[in-house]
Amino acid sequence: MVVKVGVIGTGAMGRAHIDRLTNVLTGAKVVAVTDINQEAAKAAVRDFKLDAKVYPDDTSLLQDPDIDAVFVVSFGGAHEATVLKALDTDKFIFTEKPLATTLEGAKRIVDKEMGKPRKVIQVGFMRRYDEGIHALKTQLDSGIIGAPLVVRASHINPDVAANYSNEMAITDTLIHEIDEMHWLLDDDYASIQITYPRQSSKVNNEGLRDPQLATLTTKKGVVIQVLVHVTAQYGYEVKLEVVGETGELKLPDYGFAPIVRTQATQQTAMETSWVKRFLQAYNTEVQEFINQVAKNQSPIGPSAWDGYIAAVTAEAGIRSQKDQEPVLINVATTPAFYQKKQAVKA
Amino acid sequence: MVVKVGVIGTGAMGRAHIDRLTNVLTGAKVVAVTDINQEAAKAAVRDFKLDAKVYPDDTSLLQDPDIDAVFVVSFGGAHEATVLKALDTDKFIFTEKPLATTLEGAKRIVDKEMGKPRKVIQVGFMRRYDEGIHALKTQLDSGIIGAPLVVRASHINPDVAANYSNEMAITDTLIHEIDEMHWLLDDDYASIQITYPRQSSKVNNEGLRDPQLATLTTKKGVVIQVLVHVTAQYGYEVKLEVVGETGELKLPDYGFAPIVRTQATQQTAMETSWVKRFLQAYNTEVQEFINQVAKNQSPIGPSAWDGYIAAVTAEAGIRSQKDQEPVLINVATTPAFYQKKQAVKA
Amino acid sequence: MVVKVGVIGTGAMGRAHIDRLTNVLTGAKVVAVTDINQEAAKAAVRDFKLDAKVYPDDTSLLQDPDIDAVFVVSFGGAHEATVLKALDTDKFIFTEKPLATTLEGAKRIVDKEMGKPRKVIQVGFMRRYDEGIHALKTQLDSGIIGAPLVVRASHINPDVAANYSNEMAITDTLIHEIDEMHWLLDDDYASIQITYPRQSSKVNNEGLRDPQLATLTTKKGVVIQVLVHVTAQYGYEVKLEVVGETGELKLPDYGFAPIVRTQATQQTAMETSWVKRFLQAYNTEVQEFINQVAKNQSPIGPSAWDGYIAAVTAEAGIRSQKDQEPVLINVATTPAFYQKKQAVKA
Amino acid sequence: MVVKVGVIGTGAMGRAHIDRLTNVLTGAKVVAVTDINQEAAKAAVRDFKLDAKVYPDDTSLLQDPDIDAVFVVSFGGAHEATVLKALDTDKFIFTEKPLATTLEGAKRIVDKEMGKPRKVIQVGFMRRYDEGIHALKTQLDSGIIGAPLVVRASHINPDVAANYSNEMAITDTLIHEIDEMHWLLDDDYASIQITYPRQSSKVNNEGLRDPQLATLTTKKGVVIQVLVHVTAQYGYEVKLEVVGETGELKLPDYGFAPIVRTQATQQTAMETSWVKRFLQAYNTEVQEFINQVAKNQSPIGPSAWDGYIAAVTAEAGIRSQKDQEPVLINVATTPAFYQKKQAVKA
Repeated sequence: MVVKVGVIGTGAMGRAHIDRLTNVLTGAKVVAVTDINQEAAKAAVRDFKLDAKVYPDDTSLLQDPDIDAVFVVSFGGAHEATVLKALDTDKFIFTEKPLATTLEGAKRIVDKEMGKPRKVIQVGFMRRYDEGIHALKTQLDSGIIGAPLVVRASHINPDVAANYSNEMAITDTLIHEIDEMHWLLDDDYASIQITYPRQSSKVNNEGLRDPQLATLTTKKGVVIQVLVHVTAQYGYEVKLEVVGETGELKLPDYGFAPIVRTQATQQTAMETSWVKRFLQAYNTEVQEFINQVAKNQSPIGPSAWDGYIAAVTAEAGIRSQKDQEPVLINVATTPAFYQKKQAVKA
Repeated sequence: MVVKVGVIGTGAMGRAHIDRLTNVLTGAKVVAVTDINQEAAKAAVRDFKLDAKVYPDDTSLLQDPDIDAVFVVSFGGAHEATVLKALDTDKFIFTEKPLATTLEGAKRIVDKEMGKPRKVIQVGFMRRYDEGIHALKTQLDSGIIGAPLVVRASHINPDVAANYSNEMAITDTLIHEIDEMHWLLDDDYASIQITYPRQSSKVNNEGLRDPQLATLTTKKGVVIQVLVHVTAQYGYEVKLEVVGETGELKLPDYGFAPIVRTQATQQTAMETSWVKRFLQAYNTEVQEFINQVAKNQSPIGPSAWDGYIAAVTAEAGIRSQKDQEPVLINVATTPAFYQKKQAVKA
Repeated sequence: MVVKVGVIGTGAMGRAHIDRLTNVLTGAKVVAVTDINQEAAKAAVRDFKLDAKVYPDDTSLLQDPDIDAVFVVSFGGAHEATVLKALDTDKFIFTEKPLATTLEGAKRIVDKEMGKPRKVIQVGFMRRYDEGIHALKTQLDSGIIGAPLVVRASHINPDVAANYSNEMAITDTLIHEIDEMHWLLDDDYASIQITYPRQSSKVNNEGLRDPQLATLTTKKGVVIQVLVHVTAQYGYEVKLEVVGETGELKLPDYGFAPIVRTQATQQTAMETSWVKRFLQAYNTEVQEFINQVAKNQSPIGPSAWDGYIAAVTAEAGIRSQKDQEPVLINVATTPAFYQKKQAVKA
Repeated sequence: MVVKVGVIGTGAMGRAHIDRLTNVLTGAKVVAVTDINQEAAKAAVRDFKLDAKVYPDDTSLLQDPDIDAVFVVSFGGAHEATVLKALDTDKFIFTEKPLATTLEGAKRIVDKEMGKPRKVIQVGFMRRYDEGIHALKTQLDSGIIGAPLVVRASHINPDVAANYSNEMAITDTLIHEIDEMHWLLDDDYASIQITYPRQSSKVNNEGLRDPQLATLTTKKGVVIQVLVHVTAQYGYEVKLEVVGETGELKLPDYGFAPIVRTQATQQTAMETSWVKRFLQAYNTEVQEFINQVAKNQSPIGPSAWDGYIAAVTAEAGIRSQKDQEPVLINVATTPAFYQKKQAVKA
């Protein structure tokens, strides 16, 4: 069975998913698109040679009975409304992060989804599908370093768009580590604190502090230190190191670039954006979702509940940005509806 | 357009291609299979839930007008006959290496293909599609290390099957470097010499010498030293280092396994077979072939002429195994038919 | 001129310095020793075949007019009294850390030394002399990564002695980073905070929290995050990473152990103690001190003022251990007496 | 006891040894120097503030009864005559490589030394004292990779002096691997072959072929492939990889330079000469020699017999350069006089 997909939002990320579904992965067909900018929607159909309808808006697209699953790839502020409408249909829903821009919004989605017979939403946290991060979790779970005690991570971007705000350091950047770490550690957050080291002179955006240091603590006492540095100039990379009772685990440097020895230097080219760095993760994530839909089964990736946890934690992080003091996090126990073990596989 | 594929040979490699075409890549559908062992062919249809006919032999499968392309994945000795028959049809042909087991056989294929209006054959030399090797070639071509002078490579397997013979060190193992190096250097071979270092006590196969050292020289004078070690016990890996006039290029260690510090050791898990190591290369190779067929265009990967060069060189290598002396290689100038630039992209 | 050295304290560290002065470095001769345990002092003379007097105590040794320089290598609590007495002589003084166990004690030494015509004290902070750390500082000072913004460091020990207390995580372990970082950054500390992540089950010592996270901030706003993990089981190492405005600097993994590929693993042996890891640094440090004494010139390594800064900072760290809140640090401006540029060279 | 040293030859290498003996190591004093250029000898005394006599020639220096050991650091062609004369005295002899420039000369020295009651000569092959190479040998001897089968090495120089001839690729450069490999493998050479890959356009010296590939085989059948590349431009390094029956050993990249991430590149500075790369090895080598002399015991480092093996092998290598064919090597069984196990320790 070929999964028929409707894509809501045909900006850069929407087009990336259309390309993936059309030219890379198997088992899916994009049959409908829409975008607030109708020309953009038409351009996507034309550029990717899609055999797809262009709908005027999400509401009309969602009424198409021929669509099995929708990809919500509009701008973040629009996700909640579309997902809530989609929950009124019997379609599967893949939504890019954030699930919602407020924790109340995320809660509304969770509450509504729990009214359905089964999970239908997957949130686009692709980190869990990265081959390296997945292998690190496998080793951690094997007990090779004992219980985890401290995690150190870095999220490095060379620079950011002109509209990148201080809050986006949490909601767009740190959000990946927020989802990743509680999954990695199989633990719940207890608090978050954002502090501001010396400001980089490379920051151009009004009001943006960069770098930022996030300190998350978990219920089991693990301390997670994340460096968010989005005007780092030098390249794109994520770093991850887990300190355990009897050893340490570290993500290897990423890449296939050759080691070049020349001019008294040994050097290797680095990535400069997330596009190539996480291409494998995005492909694996979406293929798994498509495979589940093809089998008419619930997605097994990050759920709306994970999206809710991220929303709660991000909101606390934004509050901490105000005075740089720790903010407590208290997410309710995971409802039975969401407790099914997630068998993500990179 | 979905490319309809017939698969000739449903052993391990045939099944891997069926899986790839069915569950990983896009744009292809396996519609027919055959195998000398008909039960194996049926099992493949059943296991991969194919909507495909099972033909009694290659001849009957090749008569099916609904098939766009065939994958020749039978045992090596059968490739030549099947490919020659397939050349009588208008189907595209993807054949696993070797193109033929004799240089005369390879020559017959080349001669017959040149009678057609365009190239239709691609030989399954996947190394060129490996992201790391491809990136290394890109750097080499950029001139960053000047002209290449010496190449050092290793082809390491933990062990081999009981039927692995001494000649297979050339025809099954070194064959990958034989195809890779003349492409990498954009150069032609002048000679090959196989020498036998101290025999490993880990060799169980009668008549097998292991390790073996292959020394290839090119028309431009580059010397290529390849270590073939197929009972190396410790893991699977390929190494590649190019020494140029002003610098060196080296393939980075492959893998995503975390760096583990424990028990006074820093360690990283290695691959133990080519399956995962070259999965990306196989996928990229086959997707490119499928995309070309979908556009009704000649394959742009390794051609029958490349298969012929490999056959000539391997045959010389086997002769060198006899007395460990250098054997000259003289491949005719590439016919115009095959000269079109191959724009392989990892 | 051979520098005549008196060694006060012949425990493990004292013997290491005697060995170094006698069997490794040039230009010095140990001519006198003392230890609260006179048998230990005699054993040192015997074991290292010294031509040296054994004095009953530091006071008598310090009266020997034939001694050019003293090494204060007694237990930490005894350093202050000996150094103060030594300042009454015209001898040069090399004292192991800590300069004193209280900031008042450190202040007393600084005040007394400033009454002399020139600096005579060097404190044994050897980190600055490590070839790798020194090279990193050179790069940092070159501006290659712009202004430093964040520093991340780890100080890892496999385990600690039974008498290692919670305060010693600051005074014995973190003390090295305390000295290193303000020198590295050429900056002054503004605050220190110690927090306690999840306790390791490997801790045997009553009252010891391990690991601990130290967060130091500087006057320029740099945030320094140090992981102190002294029951880490897996080995000994120090890590250092400096994040700047345009790049990052990282200390390479230390060691000469070969890369071993075996049993599907690539591995390298790690150090398990500081002895070998910092041997070069200790040797360089002491040779430089001896060379200065031989020229009758002030030491150019870490001064009593650096020892005072360490004492102030460590004392604040111990206060932070109480409630894990940040403690402000306010060291007075460096007196002119101590401002001479220290031209340490690894 | 301080060892009194006479230094014969005060060029760059002689001065380096004088510096080492005077300012770095312990237990030695340079009391006499000579050089064919008397001004150079006087300059050495002046520059290093030596309390040393300047002799008009080696003969007169060797007559000074106050000298315990001589360092023969004149130009290579003069070593044999000086060493033979020194053997008439009771002094210990440290001679830089080569022991002699002909195998007959080396034989004369060996024969004469065997007439003495014990070994007195050490040849300056410092590789064995390198910490990394030593650790690799320790692992190899432990059996962790089983029996060695193949060795791959590289000897890379950025460029060479104007007087560097084609033979010097063997006698000055490869000579280090010649001494290193039979010691590393505890094996004897059976043959040597020099071949010439594509000539680098960076070669300026008339008659010099660069790079060169040396293939040494041993009595046990191990094949050793050495790349000698002396106009490599990019830096100085030696590489070493030993392939065994169950694993591989590789020398780690050398150096303390920080890992710098900047401008989309991860990079590390490399050495550009042997001076720093092998400083530790030279120091360890000479200190060990001095310690043996101080104990009035035979040197335990590379012996005159090792120098003879090197001379025989180098001479065969030069013959191979003529026609690039393998040349057999047949060194007689090690005389009992030289069989004492060498307990070199890095």
